[in-house]
Amino acid sequence: MSARDAVLLDNTHRTPAQSLYDRLIATRRLSAELARPLSDEDQVVQANDDASPAKWHLAHTTWFFEAFVLKPFLEVYPLFDERFEYCFNSYYESVGPRHPRPKRGLLTRPSADEVRAYREHVDAALERLFAINLQPRAAELIELGINHEQQHQELLLTDILSLFAGEPLKPAYTRAHPGVAVAEPPPLDWVSFDGGIYAVGHDGEGFAYDNERPRHDELMRPFRLANRCVTNAEWIAFIEAGGYRTATLWLADGWATVKAQGWTSPLYWEEADGGFMQMSLVGFRPLDPAAPVSHVSYYEADAFARFAGYRLPSEFEWEVAADGVPVKGRTLGAGHFRPVRVETRLAGLKQMYGDVWEWTRSAYLPYPGFQAAPGAVGEYNGKFMCNQFVLRGGSCATPEGHIRKTYRNFFYPHQRWQFVGLRLASDA
Amino acid sequence: MSARDAVLLDNTHRTPAQSLYDRLIATRRLSAELARPLSDEDQVVQANDDASPAKWHLAHTTWFFEAFVLKPFLEVYPLFDERFEYCFNSYYESVGPRHPRPKRGLLTRPSADEVRAYREHVDAALERLFAINLQPRAAELIELGINHEQQHQELLLTDILSLFAGEPLKPAYTRAHPGVAVAEPPPLDWVSFDGGIYAVGHDGEGFAYDNERPRHDELMRPFRLANRCVTNAEWIAFIEAGGYRTATLWLADGWATVKAQGWTSPLYWEEADGGFMQMSLVGFRPLDPAAPVSHVSYYEADAFARFAGYRLPSEFEWEVAADGVPVKGRTLGAGHFRPVRVETRLAGLKQMYGDVWEWTRSAYLPYPGFQAAPGAVGEYNGKFMCNQFVLRGGSCATPEGHIRKTYRNFFYPHQRWQFVGLRLASDA
Amino acid sequence: MSARDAVLLDNTHRTPAQSLYDRLIATRRLSAELARPLSDEDQVVQANDDASPAKWHLAHTTWFFEAFVLKPFLEVYPLFDERFEYCFNSYYESVGPRHPRPKRGLLTRPSADEVRAYREHVDAALERLFAINLQPRAAELIELGINHEQQHQELLLTDILSLFAGEPLKPAYTRAHPGVAVAEPPPLDWVSFDGGIYAVGHDGEGFAYDNERPRHDELMRPFRLANRCVTNAEWIAFIEAGGYRTATLWLADGWATVKAQGWTSPLYWEEADGGFMQMSLVGFRPLDPAAPVSHVSYYEADAFARFAGYRLPSEFEWEVAADGVPVKGRTLGAGHFRPVRVETRLAGLKQMYGDVWEWTRSAYLPYPGFQAAPGAVGEYNGKFMCNQFVLRGGSCATPEGHIRKTYRNFFYPHQRWQFVGLRLASDA
Amino acid sequence: MSARDAVLLDNTHRTPAQSLYDRLIATRRLSAELARPLSDEDQVVQANDDASPAKWHLAHTTWFFEAFVLKPFLEVYPLFDERFEYCFNSYYESVGPRHPRPKRGLLTRPSADEVRAYREHVDAALERLFAINLQPRAAELIELGINHEQQHQELLLTDILSLFAGEPLKPAYTRAHPGVAVAEPPPLDWVSFDGGIYAVGHDGEGFAYDNERPRHDELMRPFRLANRCVTNAEWIAFIEAGGYRTATLWLADGWATVKAQGWTSPLYWEEADGGFMQMSLVGFRPLDPAAPVSHVSYYEADAFARFAGYRLPSEFEWEVAADGVPVKGRTLGAGHFRPVRVETRLAGLKQMYGDVWEWTRSAYLPYPGFQAAPGAVGEYNGKFMCNQFVLRGGSCATPEGHIRKTYRNFFYPHQRWQFVGLRLASDA
Repeated sequence: MSARDAVLLDNTHRTPAQSLYDRLIATRRLSAELARPLSDEDQVVQANDDASPAKWHLAHTTWFFEAFVLKPFLEVYPLFDERFEYCFNSYYESVGPRHPRPKRGLLTRPSADEVRAYREHVDAALERLFAINLQPRAAELIELGINHEQQHQELLLTDILSLFAGEPLKPAYTRAHPGVAVAEPPPLDWVSFDGGIYAVGHDGEGFAYDNERPRHDELMRPFRLANRCVTNAEWIAFIEAGGYRTATLWLADGWATVKAQGWTSPLYWEEADGGFMQMSLVGFRPLDPAAPVSHVSYYEADAFARFAGYRLPSEFEWEVAADGVPVKGRTLGAGHFRPVRVETRLAGLKQMYGDVWEWTRSAYLPYPGFQAAPGAVGEYNGKFMCNQFVLRGGSCATPEGHIRKTYRNFFYPHQRWQFVGLRLASDA
Repeated sequence: MSARDAVLLDNTHRTPAQSLYDRLIATRRLSAELARPLSDEDQVVQANDDASPAKWHLAHTTWFFEAFVLKPFLEVYPLFDERFEYCFNSYYESVGPRHPRPKRGLLTRPSADEVRAYREHVDAALERLFAINLQPRAAELIELGINHEQQHQELLLTDILSLFAGEPLKPAYTRAHPGVAVAEPPPLDWVSFDGGIYAVGHDGEGFAYDNERPRHDELMRPFRLANRCVTNAEWIAFIEAGGYRTATLWLADGWATVKAQGWTSPLYWEEADGGFMQMSLVGFRPLDPAAPVSHVSYYEADAFARFAGYRLPSEFEWEVAADGVPVKGRTLGAGHFRPVRVETRLAGLKQMYGDVWEWTRSAYLPYPGFQAAPGAVGEYNGKFMCNQFVLRGGSCATPEGHIRKTYRNFFYPHQRWQFVGLRLASDA
Repeated sequence: MSARDAVLLDNTHRTPAQSLYDRLIATRRLSAELARPLSDEDQVVQANDDASPAKWHLAHTTWFFEAFVLKPFLEVYPLFDERFEYCFNSYYESVGPRHPRPKRGLLTRPSADEVRAYREHVDAALERLFAINLQPRAAELIELGINHEQQHQELLLTDILSLFAGEPLKPAYTRAHPGVAVAEPPPLDWVSFDGGIYAVGHDGEGFAYDNERPRHDELMRPFRLANRCVTNAEWIAFIEAGGYRTATLWLADGWATVKAQGWTSPLYWEEADGGFMQMSLVGFRPLDPAAPVSHVSYYEADAFARFAGYRLPSEFEWEVAADGVPVKGRTLGAGHFRPVRVETRLAGLKQMYGDVWEWTRSAYLPYPGFQAAPGAVGEYNGKFMCNQFVLRGGSCATPEGHIRKTYRNFFYPHQRWQFVGLRLASDA
Repeated sequence: MSARDAVLLDNTHRTPAQSLYDRLIATRRLSAELARPLSDEDQVVQANDDASPAKWHLAHTTWFFEAFVLKPFLEVYPLFDERFEYCFNSYYESVGPRHPRPKRGLLTRPSADEVRAYREHVDAALERLFAINLQPRAAELIELGINHEQQHQELLLTDILSLFAGEPLKPAYTRAHPGVAVAEPPPLDWVSFDGGIYAVGHDGEGFAYDNERPRHDELMRPFRLANRCVTNAEWIAFIEAGGYRTATLWLADGWATVKAQGWTSPLYWEEADGGFMQMSLVGFRPLDPAAPVSHVSYYEADAFARFAGYRLPSEFEWEVAADGVPVKGRTLGAGHFRPVRVETRLAGLKQMYGDVWEWTRSAYLPYPGFQAAPGAVGEYNGKFMCNQFVLRGGSCATPEGHIRKTYRNFFYPHQRWQFVGLRLASDA
């Protein structure tokens, strides 16, 4: 450990700006770290239209700092390459034209080496920015940039899984991962909550996205939440009971998708002698029946809940229930790289954070009084508030410190390449 | 008028069963009436995948009574033709296999004549059913069948408009229609409502669909609602200000649709010298700038509201505001066959019913505690609670007596072949 | 029979112009006759993108006379409706814009009645044209118009079959048809032909399309031709031997089509207890194993020939072999409305004309020195000389007198909704 | 130069087997050489469904030797990796299942390094095979393998151009290339040929593909062939005369493609101030008006010829004309990596070999008496004899020694990512 690193770790004497800087460089380093097991070839290919290449994630997160922080706030900032704006803008219409999303995998140039140099160039400029007096708006945007990069760290992992799952050789992203408990997970149990008016949404302490605001009151009815996520074993029971062949369990759009796509199991499952194999970041392995089910669409989660006689929770039920639950769980820092079984048999809610994102029955819509942030970063969340559903709680691929109680993730109901599972709920 | 008809109109001495029968035959007659301006050729063709042929509507509504009322409740009922179940089931998976939706336009057989005979056969059987003691469940299903047929009456008209708009000869569905006021409509004004807890959803008096229940409390924030719908003139201002070319006004999915479809105006508009022409059920005519805009998607309605500095109302804001507003308006009974300008200049909410369905910002989701009806009719509403938005208020094509304060219509956000417009709202 | 009809039938004293007129009105009447079993509904619907509605065929053939004969050659000709040019131009780019081909089925207007009136209007004008001195170029174009209408008569029948086959009620176009012999067809036998230089193409006697010219020499190698077409029984053997599952029998494009379309038999076949049923113009009936196979694509014909150890003939082999064979066979005049079994057991080539068009291995390309006709009618054939294969011999739906030895029909190799079969060939 | 290399170059004392081995290793080396300017990233990506990644070309050509030579003919041959058969089989149905063609770009594994090791493994085994007595059939298949790899060398280059043209940074594949003459090319002139019976097809001396056989007689009519290919300047005249907007110049399928794809110029052209830029293997540069036009589809070539008042030659006209013309031209060995202008002003046919493949009007069909080779290699050519057109003469990317007078290349009429141009012809 260098002297500088030692200083960085001693948070007690750090100013807010220094702390921000610490987290910035830790985040920047983690991205590089996550890319390390990948060859340059692995980093350039786009697995499908939903996914992006790893190199693109590395460059786009860098461009984000360049476009929204360095250009406006650093007096003298030489662009690394002016053509990169076209290459690595994701969807910011206000910023200008950009390379089409489904063609991100054609960018063999700039090379992975050039992208690494780009990252260094921007990191150095960010260091210079901190050397002068950091404006509050710049600090806010750096905070946004850190959180933005964390989101892309998760995407980098899910997109690599998607790529590797499509390769005949079925490579593992990592072989090094901690062991998993072998005890049976606790049986399904219920935790009850009273109805009433609850304040939900972010309260302003620390960072939050604009879509978590404003904090506002919601009128809740009494409800119950399952103590843990639905497991693979429970999902196998759904399959064996004909769940994927029973139209009346499904939303109409879901049933149409099941038939069009030929779904018969979660994504990445493959039937083998005497059971299921599953492709994962740790390779192609026998499915752990006690681990939470993952890679299921909203349609499947909804059908499963109907099959089981329950329903999905609303996003506010989840948030109210999470109140008081420590923000701890098997996220990326746990190093599992996949959802694993619950270890504890203590009563109460388990697995609220980490392992798998949990589908809610809430459409992703603006909170009452929602205002998108001004300027281009206002495109960050608001323009996606249509046709998607909210997920809560983070996953095994969510970076440490990125998740919180009020965090709203969102995906289309047919999507399943993320680490997405479910927890059951019911009216009390 | 026949003696029987005279009796029918004398509602004062009718039993509930007799009243139900009166409404049943009035509804059945109206369907035939609406088909009268159409040739058999007009009735067989399917304009697009969203629309159905008029003949199909006539047959499907008849099949509904056969499948859900006559077969279970009439002791001796000879099927008109057992093959019709396959032909005219719409989407009831529980009932059995069916002719694919996009191929409804291939059904030149059974002929329009046979479908008319089918209607008479079923009407006669329904008459026999009323001659015996009507079971309460049968009465409920007949009520559902009446409402179901009313929905298809509206669809028959919107689908014919869609067909005729695609014909080079641009025929008018009807030439006979009442005159329209020429006075300017009232300027945009606002009506304010307090926040608080309001009960919404159907209270159980009279018929309602399962998706309007259960009645439940909603916590509302103070809001304002526009006194009338957005007009064509206001929409032209949006067009002229570059609304269809300004990405930042749009939801991301909306913008993608605008570009993919090449939208530059509402559906059925055509630019002509010095203004716009509009295809309608009364033919191809100059656009009335004072009439409410119609045939706009949710995406367009949302973008317009953002452009105007306002937002769309939630479905509950609409419902709370409608409380106390008489359920009156230019629906199908008014005989306009198109949305027309507001005539009154009185203060308060105008045009809440009729003219155009109003997009709300509410995703179409189950109410808390929603339970689909048991059996096949449970597929009526619940399985569509995904990916659609709620509309309120009925249109110029909604049959008289079909609409109510708690009525929830729903369409996908890109759809615009219905009579769909919007009313602005804002936080108070 | 009217006096006029009686005169018309007495061909012996007719001038060439009178004969032309006789054939013109006979052709015009036959079109009306073929439409008679159809309701107006049947006539308006378009079965698929390859097919056209019957009403469209009736109107388009009429427009052809209007556009290419009456407008240029009749001094005073009031257009029936100037908008019909847009509606009923098929593909003549030189003439102007036109209604899109896949949307022909949306033309509920003009009505079938109006189209019948249109036909009468044009027929009357054609009669007037004959009353004055007919210019040679006009006579040529009328001849072309007659042949053009005959082609559409065949298409009208194949398109109706395509429509009726897609209807759940599987209606028959006609119930009246002559009986068919029950004797076994003759066994497969071979007729040999010498190599050498042969003149092929049309020699100028009588009408021919431009694509049959110029007559020119072809160098032929010795070859053998099967005495009759391949039968349904022989095709069943191909199916039972796994023909549709054996990739190596197929052209690459053919195999891709088999897999994409899920082909397991000819079009209109349906497996039933103990055999195959077949949809046809005479209804849904058990397949006759002794009838020639029909509704097979080029890909299937080619694969069958490879399976059988033979090949398809070239178009010139067919033409050379047909030299001296009387132009007689079960064409439309025979009234079978479907291919039927060979009756004779005499030696030599049978079934060269009628029953089914025969796929050849010849790509549809211009003959050496080919020149398209000048003007818009030059678009008749030449612009399709790409990506299609030549068929020879006519079918059960080809009008009497339309076929000849040099006639070149052409379709894409995946198409099979025509009456298309095959005859085997081999090198001598 | 190693001693071994020195020996290899001394062809005078080499046995046929030694010569074959020399050519084998020269070919294998050239593939590696062509990949050298590419990063591993460049090599893994698939530009589009028609193209394949460079790494795939390198591996597939290696698998070809493994599957067809080493496995059958080397007594002890350990497979490098048995899973590679699935990864790198292109289309040999007889060999077994394979990775889907449109997903070749997902193969980040095996890595470029592993593929290089695979090549060495196979090369070493091939060396061992030569150390023993080489069976004649093995020698034939090695010869086929050499020619096969040469074809893929050309594809590797055209596919990289396709990839690089889609990259925003528009990289050059190579900067090192010889200068080009600046003199004007010779004016268009004609060379005449007599009609008569000519023998065409391969005569058996040296290697040829099965599709060039059997040699057979063709009856030819007198014709004229242009002395050189059509130039970019001539193509610009076509554009400026509205060629891409004039329907009557085009085949119907061609015109549909022009409209659907929005073609307004050859592939890789881009309009710029005062002229056209062109993407090429030597980068994005101003178009040379005197160079032959390249990257035009059959449809465009055909339309141009019609516009110019001529036609395309048949493949036999080209072959007869090429008789006696030395097989020399700017192929890959010339190192231009793009078509360049004709230098000589001598009379007679120029540019018959190299620069651009020349579209002919001949559909790609079997020669009379064609028999595909037995076994899996029989799938090499025969199964593609449908829907494609023949091209002759080789291009700037065709490896030295690969082309010959009877060589038949073939592509679909809409394809233009190869170096494809045209030479005009006419009847004499």
